[in-house]
Amino acid sequence: MMKEYTIGIDIGGTNTAFGFVTKTGEVFLDGSITTRGYKNAEHFVEILSNTLKENIKIYSNDHKLKGIGIGAPNGNYYSGCVEFAPNLEWEGIVNLVDLMKKHIDLPVFLTNDANAGAIGEMLFGGAKGMNDFIYITLGTGVGSGIVSNGKLVYGHDGFAGEIGHTFAVTDGRDCGCGRKGCLETYTSATGIVRTALEFLEKDKRQSELRMYDPAEITSKLIYDAAVKGDKTALEIFDYTAMILGRSLADAVAYTSPEAIFLFGGLAKAKEFMLHPVKQYMEKYILNIYKNKVKILPSELKEGQAAVIGAAAFIWNEI
Amino acid sequence: MMKEYTIGIDIGGTNTAFGFVTKTGEVFLDGSITTRGYKNAEHFVEILSNTLKENIKIYSNDHKLKGIGIGAPNGNYYSGCVEFAPNLEWEGIVNLVDLMKKHIDLPVFLTNDANAGAIGEMLFGGAKGMNDFIYITLGTGVGSGIVSNGKLVYGHDGFAGEIGHTFAVTDGRDCGCGRKGCLETYTSATGIVRTALEFLEKDKRQSELRMYDPAEITSKLIYDAAVKGDKTALEIFDYTAMILGRSLADAVAYTSPEAIFLFGGLAKAKEFMLHPVKQYMEKYILNIYKNKVKILPSELKEGQAAVIGAAAFIWNEI
Repeated sequence: MMKEYTIGIDIGGTNTAFGFVTKTGEVFLDGSITTRGYKNAEHFVEILSNTLKENIKIYSNDHKLKGIGIGAPNGNYYSGCVEFAPNLEWEGIVNLVDLMKKHIDLPVFLTNDANAGAIGEMLFGGAKGMNDFIYITLGTGVGSGIVSNGKLVYGHDGFAGEIGHTFAVTDGRDCGCGRKGCLETYTSATGIVRTALEFLEKDKRQSELRMYDPAEITSKLIYDAAVKGDKTALEIFDYTAMILGRSLADAVAYTSPEAIFLFGGLAKAKEFMLHPVKQYMEKYILNIYKNKVKILPSELKEGQAAVIGAAAFIWNEI
Repeated sequence: MMKEYTIGIDIGGTNTAFGFVTKTGEVFLDGSITTRGYKNAEHFVEILSNTLKENIKIYSNDHKLKGIGIGAPNGNYYSGCVEFAPNLEWEGIVNLVDLMKKHIDLPVFLTNDANAGAIGEMLFGGAKGMNDFIYITLGTGVGSGIVSNGKLVYGHDGFAGEIGHTFAVTDGRDCGCGRKGCLETYTSATGIVRTALEFLEKDKRQSELRMYDPAEITSKLIYDAAVKGDKTALEIFDYTAMILGRSLADAVAYTSPEAIFLFGGLAKAKEFMLHPVKQYMEKYILNIYKNKVKILPSELKEGQAAVIGAAAFIWNEI
């Protein structure tokens, strides 16, 4: 009997990863190509398709490809287009779905990486059986996917779920998006570094982190210092957890999820993030929601999450 | 042929209104009883049911009742219970749906008034044909109902959509809910009065509003002063619109609606609220959403909206 599978593609600023994924979420082949240096998007999709086709051929005896799911920054579900993605070389609006279908005549769907991750969590991760949850990625930026009534919330224009760009602090930090006080400027990997630099500037107390040139400080260094009990590092995490917990209290007032899943580097710092975020969320949450909403680590594997998410996303469509 | 209808019930702190409503939203009978002064909730539901039954009888020759929809503060869709509603006399948790079904053996569903209003807008108002929109009531408090993928967002616990209790200002005004800076403390009828008192205290400029004892100032008086061009009143509205517009920019980042409907006294002040709210929302909104989201006045009639919403809600269920 033919074994059915889908291909999940994760388009990043530097590399594009892909995985061949079964209906139970098993990745039986993976690979990647560079995202940069092509003549244009058409050329990129041609090279990507050729690479996929070679691998599809290898398995064609006993495996049947059902469709392709693509996760990409600013990927629009309705239009199939990547629109003005700041980290990609292509200019303007690129219809990735149409380009891909020229090479591989199967269902192809596109969404952004956080939305794909949310569906990955729903099909293959900790959100199995949940109808209402939120998935948040704490990476270089802060992304999110919202599932409500068992369905991903795309919204009218296909771009719903940008919790990273809601106001966490009134008139707060300048954000790359042009606004002030976005959650992303506090609770991303770069946000926590900004907090570190502010805290190191503000008080003059001894800290591990003073050993480094400020330009060298990373979220990893802050985490390592916190593990060793460095007071400044602990306060940096506490502040970050407070900001995130307070924003999640707002998120709950919108869609009242059963759980909020945190994914990415910062989410792994359980004792410094996951637990305090829950405590701060409970502190700031409206009474009717108290002690109802779980804060959980994503169950998707860090290296595979985006690809599995994109594969889950196409499984969910077909 | 029998004409089908539903009954919509709006339970308020003082009065409980009901309407007999056709599938096209026509109210062919309405009435009300007091909500207060009964022995207990059982007694209230008994009296309400008897009143309804007398009227049902009158129409029973050529009208067929299909179900009853109830909108009540803190009404929970899943449990059928009103839970700890601050403005009602009943203590704790009251299962209104079960109580009502003892008297009238038909489908009975409960939700809160803002959710019922949202469904009213979808079936009988300006949101016909929309799959993604938000309905916001600007009354004594600020309520909201969110529709996503064509369905009302109840959330895991049935209490989703409390945009009035998201943070509009970091560490802002004390809210009755125990938190600080809730949208409701700025953009409700009582919120705009708080703004007026603050503004009158802060500057000492001449204003119409100084003719009144501060305890007498209402949103209506502020509106009347603004119509006459009173600078302070205009600034009060401008500030209120800024706060609401900024919070709606956040709301869009959650569910990316096609439109946001504003209902209630403040929403009627088009030139001072509706238009500036839209401008402020565009100012604060994330780039990808710019010029995509409409701000519209609710098309439900002020006096009938809650009853029509509850009737629409039960039409939507059956």
